[in-house]
Amino acid sequence: MSGRPVIAVDVMGGDFGPSVVVPGAVDAARLHDAHVLLVGDTHKIEVELRKLNLADVQFDIVQADEVVHMNEKPSDVLRRKKNSSIQVGCRLVKEGTANAVVSAGHSGATVACGMFIMGRLPGVERPALATMLPTEKNPVVVLDVGANVDCRPYHLFQFGLMGDAFARDILGYAAPRVCILSIGEEEGKGNSQVKEAYELLKLAQNINFVGNAEGRDIFVGDIDVVICDGFVGNVVIKMSEGLAASLTRMVKRVFMSGVLPALGGMLARKAFRRFARTIDYTEYGGAPLLGLQGLAIVCHGRSDACAIRNAAKMAAAYVRKNANSRLAEIILANEELTRFSRAV
Amino acid sequence: MSGRPVIAVDVMGGDFGPSVVVPGAVDAARLHDAHVLLVGDTHKIEVELRKLNLADVQFDIVQADEVVHMNEKPSDVLRRKKNSSIQVGCRLVKEGTANAVVSAGHSGATVACGMFIMGRLPGVERPALATMLPTEKNPVVVLDVGANVDCRPYHLFQFGLMGDAFARDILGYAAPRVCILSIGEEEGKGNSQVKEAYELLKLAQNINFVGNAEGRDIFVGDIDVVICDGFVGNVVIKMSEGLAASLTRMVKRVFMSGVLPALGGMLARKAFRRFARTIDYTEYGGAPLLGLQGLAIVCHGRSDACAIRNAAKMAAAYVRKNANSRLAEIILANEELTRFSRAV
Repeated sequence: MSGRPVIAVDVMGGDFGPSVVVPGAVDAARLHDAHVLLVGDTHKIEVELRKLNLADVQFDIVQADEVVHMNEKPSDVLRRKKNSSIQVGCRLVKEGTANAVVSAGHSGATVACGMFIMGRLPGVERPALATMLPTEKNPVVVLDVGANVDCRPYHLFQFGLMGDAFARDILGYAAPRVCILSIGEEEGKGNSQVKEAYELLKLAQNINFVGNAEGRDIFVGDIDVVICDGFVGNVVIKMSEGLAASLTRMVKRVFMSGVLPALGGMLARKAFRRFARTIDYTEYGGAPLLGLQGLAIVCHGRSDACAIRNAAKMAAAYVRKNANSRLAEIILANEELTRFSRAV
Repeated sequence: MSGRPVIAVDVMGGDFGPSVVVPGAVDAARLHDAHVLLVGDTHKIEVELRKLNLADVQFDIVQADEVVHMNEKPSDVLRRKKNSSIQVGCRLVKEGTANAVVSAGHSGATVACGMFIMGRLPGVERPALATMLPTEKNPVVVLDVGANVDCRPYHLFQFGLMGDAFARDILGYAAPRVCILSIGEEEGKGNSQVKEAYELLKLAQNINFVGNAEGRDIFVGDIDVVICDGFVGNVVIKMSEGLAASLTRMVKRVFMSGVLPALGGMLARKAFRRFARTIDYTEYGGAPLLGLQGLAIVCHGRSDACAIRNAAKMAAAYVRKNANSRLAEIILANEELTRFSRAV
């Protein structure tokens, strides 16, 4: 290894495969001082590499014979596709050859392979998928967004701890305001799972827990970490994506509804483009699966080269800051509480 | 009674109290052919009535001595505030003096009083709060949005049945496409509760169940009824409200970001105003609590007179169409299935 973070990139994943993943990974290696391992079909990777400028790029190719299809069950991928690019990527981390893996492929399979091949950090009950959403101020971290659909209160509790560590190290927030997503701001509001997790979070060591948040608080920007179970979190992120897309289409229709609005739209076009960039999901590239020995980043299937590059950039930053050590620390500092809640 | 629907309106509820609720109720009586019972402090009601034109308005005043405050527990309101405007309103329905009750007060207390004073229709396990959200096409009915935070699969199942009946009778949809909110479109995706409810919905009599919906599908307009538990539903509606408000503020900031965008904004202003009206929540006025003997409509605390009027209008339409009879019918047609699921 070169001293640089080594990032394994599953080039076979995503809607566009090697043609966008390879250039994205190569860009990350050049711009963000990482060593990338391009995992997949060597021939296809070489075809893409020939189109690129490879000066100053540290990379290796790691052959993987199999590809995971979107309709496969995560458990089947784990059992049967030992040579799939995602399994090979996770094993590179497990063996210590790579520090992190990035994939835009089957997200369920990536989560399963990350969890079972790379393994969990000591004390972590369930790794959590975190995502960053744009708000009116700074981005907010929401977790879990789909790795754990049926949760117990101590799972939610640990999501808060891991979200805190991530927001501090990767987003640079000094004392992240950690909330649990509920249906009222007052203590005592929520379903039974949330109410119990609230009790644990109040007692947590070393985090700035500020209570319940409601759905309407997420986008204002006054909270930094939002805890929820993976079912709720997945609904939330897909819904915000869907609502933003629908509103965008509706606003476009407003501009096309007459001559004056159309003229207005032309005048405001540049400003809208700048705005669109500020709420662009590709800025963060992907959703980190937190709590692993190493790190896996799950990218959107529709990721373009820029999203892949940013995901690899985030992975490199995570490794460089040794963010897992803070995460392990806060999990251990709260181990008694977790164990107590698990026992009752 | 006059043959007209009789709607009890809790005039003490909401952020603005009698000053907006009384004119809203009076407008409903005049424009939508209802007889309204203004429930609350007689003196305050009379003060408001003096400001209004009461020609052709059928109404009565029903004195209620107590007012419910927002920080009270629903169970305390139910036990101790027998003379609160919301309890008196619900009793008017229970006794057969009114057909429905409308309140913009404490929503938890309204749900509790509706459930325990008015009682459930035969076979209904849990009344559900339904709301209508604007989409790119026709409005979609989402339920439950907060009456039941901890649900069993057969509760979700019955929400689907009640949502179907409501969409047919009140929105006039011929064969509403009923979905369950989940984290993937394929059968077998979701948490354990959703997966079991899916099995029940597949077997349901007389509804057009079309499978799972994801968060991103809600606002496109290709589904008509979305089923979820009250925790998820409450998060969803508050989040969509919050995201829409945040995006609106951000778009305004775009228009103020320079001379050209500002000019563009002026040209498009009228078209945007028309658009804002199409996604205005006050159009539906409130969220009906379905499954009761009678009907309760829970309005937003911030309701203006127009929202109250539209809530009373919806209540009157509900009564006129005898929508509870269809609801009771579909619940009974699926009683065996509900009972089976409850037993396992």
